Amino acid sequence: MHILIIGAAGMIGRKLTSALVAAGQVGGKPIEKLTLADVIEPASVAFGGAVETLASDLSAPGAATRLVSGRPDLVFHLAAIVSGEAEADFDKGYRINLDGTRYLLEAIRQEGLKQPYVPRLVFTSSIAVFGAPFPDAIGDEFFNTPLTSYGTQKAICELLLSDYSRKGFVDGIGIRLPTIAIRPGKPNAAASGFFSNILREPLVGQEAILPVSRDVRHWFASPRAAIGFLIHAAELDTTRLGWRRNLSAPGLSATVGEEIEALRRVAGEKAVRLIREVPDQRIIGMVDGWPKNFAARRAESLGFKAEKNFDEIIRIHVEDELGGKIGG
Amino acid sequence: MHILIIGAAGMIGRKLTSALVAAGQVGGKPIEKLTLADVIEPASVAFGGAVETLASDLSAPGAATRLVSGRPDLVFHLAAIVSGEAEADFDKGYRINLDGTRYLLEAIRQEGLKQPYVPRLVFTSSIAVFGAPFPDAIGDEFFNTPLTSYGTQKAICELLLSDYSRKGFVDGIGIRLPTIAIRPGKPNAAASGFFSNILREPLVGQEAILPVSRDVRHWFASPRAAIGFLIHAAELDTTRLGWRRNLSAPGLSATVGEEIEALRRVAGEKAVRLIREVPDQRIIGMVDGWPKNFAARRAESLGFKAEKNFDEIIRIHVEDELGGKIGG
Repeated sequence: MHILIIGAAGMIGRKLTSALVAAGQVGGKPIEKLTLADVIEPASVAFGGAVETLASDLSAPGAATRLVSGRPDLVFHLAAIVSGEAEADFDKGYRINLDGTRYLLEAIRQEGLKQPYVPRLVFTSSIAVFGAPFPDAIGDEFFNTPLTSYGTQKAICELLLSDYSRKGFVDGIGIRLPTIAIRPGKPNAAASGFFSNILREPLVGQEAILPVSRDVRHWFASPRAAIGFLIHAAELDTTRLGWRRNLSAPGLSATVGEEIEALRRVAGEKAVRLIREVPDQRIIGMVDGWPKNFAARRAESLGFKAEKNFDEIIRIHVEDELGGKIGG
Repeated sequence: MHILIIGAAGMIGRKLTSALVAAGQVGGKPIEKLTLADVIEPASVAFGGAVETLASDLSAPGAATRLVSGRPDLVFHLAAIVSGEAEADFDKGYRINLDGTRYLLEAIRQEGLKQPYVPRLVFTSSIAVFGAPFPDAIGDEFFNTPLTSYGTQKAICELLLSDYSRKGFVDGIGIRLPTIAIRPGKPNAAASGFFSNILREPLVGQEAILPVSRDVRHWFASPRAAIGFLIHAAELDTTRLGWRRNLSAPGLSATVGEEIEALRRVAGEKAVRLIREVPDQRIIGMVDGWPKNFAARRAESLGFKAEKNFDEIIRIHVEDELGGKIGG
């Protein structure tokens, strides 16, 4: 099979590529070709089959048509600008996060009008489609009232994905990813970055800033779980979804305090002492409007799996990013 | 104040225009100018203030910009192609129902970038944003899983309306109208037309076809109630909405059997005998996926009002359309 990954240069894109290369197959079908696309050309990978890498801005005229012209059997659409950037640059957010996705769906439809073609399309949506106030746990039928342009764009793409699937133009499935923890790499400017920073940095002997109180609750999954969701979505019998093509992924609802206790158990008191509490009113205010907990029954019953506690999430990070080694 | 009505030539548009002309004011502010726009030029109306009528296709480049250039204080956006047409012509549905609305929002935003401008925008959404299976009554936090492209387009416009409002570009409010009964005029090709036909035609001594069983339940409001919703939406203090700018209007949940019993009470057995039952499997199948009942608590608490029974809906039709006279 031929797989196209749009947004292949990002953290999830690179991990997904590695996982697909390691598996060599999806749903029992051998992978013959990987096309890796992103706004900057993704690095190539060592792979037995064909690998094509290309720089492609999905929001540019004709880009989606060119990506789809190779008629990939499976498309992962991960490309988006993040929440903060979409909020700061209204036009860019709509152009990339909404128009880009619409061009992709339309390119697939147009390709199918030439000759029958209904690829599986796995789309990464976000819990940002939900906006406060929330129930104790957000259920599978709770409405989308995003409080960011990013969340609005994701919610619109979900609706388009469903409609194009219902019309038989694509075989789409959208997965609302929890906040990814522990996000590898350096601390970044994302407002949600501290959830990862306070674990990742102390695990290598570095200080980290905690800008909110320890009782803040949020919704998490590891990068490994996220890749698992996407591959499971690619392999799923989508007739089980009916026309409700978008799912909240399972995850772990935990407080910052629970994160810190898990860090203590896995890496000891020395690591915990590296967390410095520096309240930041801007971040405290934003976090208040974010989802805290879900009842993701539908995704669970469809076989999607996440971590059960933060000890597990930390261990995955130590295994996947630190070669099993803790300490600075 | 200056009011722009987009979609002014349709049934709701004409009734809304008449109601505004009769009132002469909205929220205590005198109406100085009415701009009436539609794809075909709307008929003018006798009015003390200025009236401009114009043919304008909202989905054509520049049309929205021209409509907004007069900086109306209040915009009613009623224009859309109907469900059946949007389902049959995928491109046209997205072009008119989605792109047209987006052009309008964007034209308002661009006008505001030149010089501060935040008009009230009242948007007619639809219960088609919901798709079966449903709870017994659809609550205010039930999710949007439309089963038509029309419903998808309306749900997307709702999200855009909220985001443009949250960003301060427009002061938007979307009202999901129930099925309008009794719809005046001739029987039309709409699959939902029979709900009106079986009352309207017998009231003037004409036969009507009932294609579904009498226990089919659906969600209704009179044309008069619908106009009331739109004017109330124009006058409402939108700070009461927070960022949840779209509402399911109140309505009447009733069965076809209840419609017929009301007809019997208002117009007698002779009228009821004019209903001919001719089951139509295509319509029976479609109706099955339509909303049957809502708990529209939020709109009710905000002062929106609908009818309590079909006797009332029939009497409104007799008053507003038949000059108070029943019979053929």
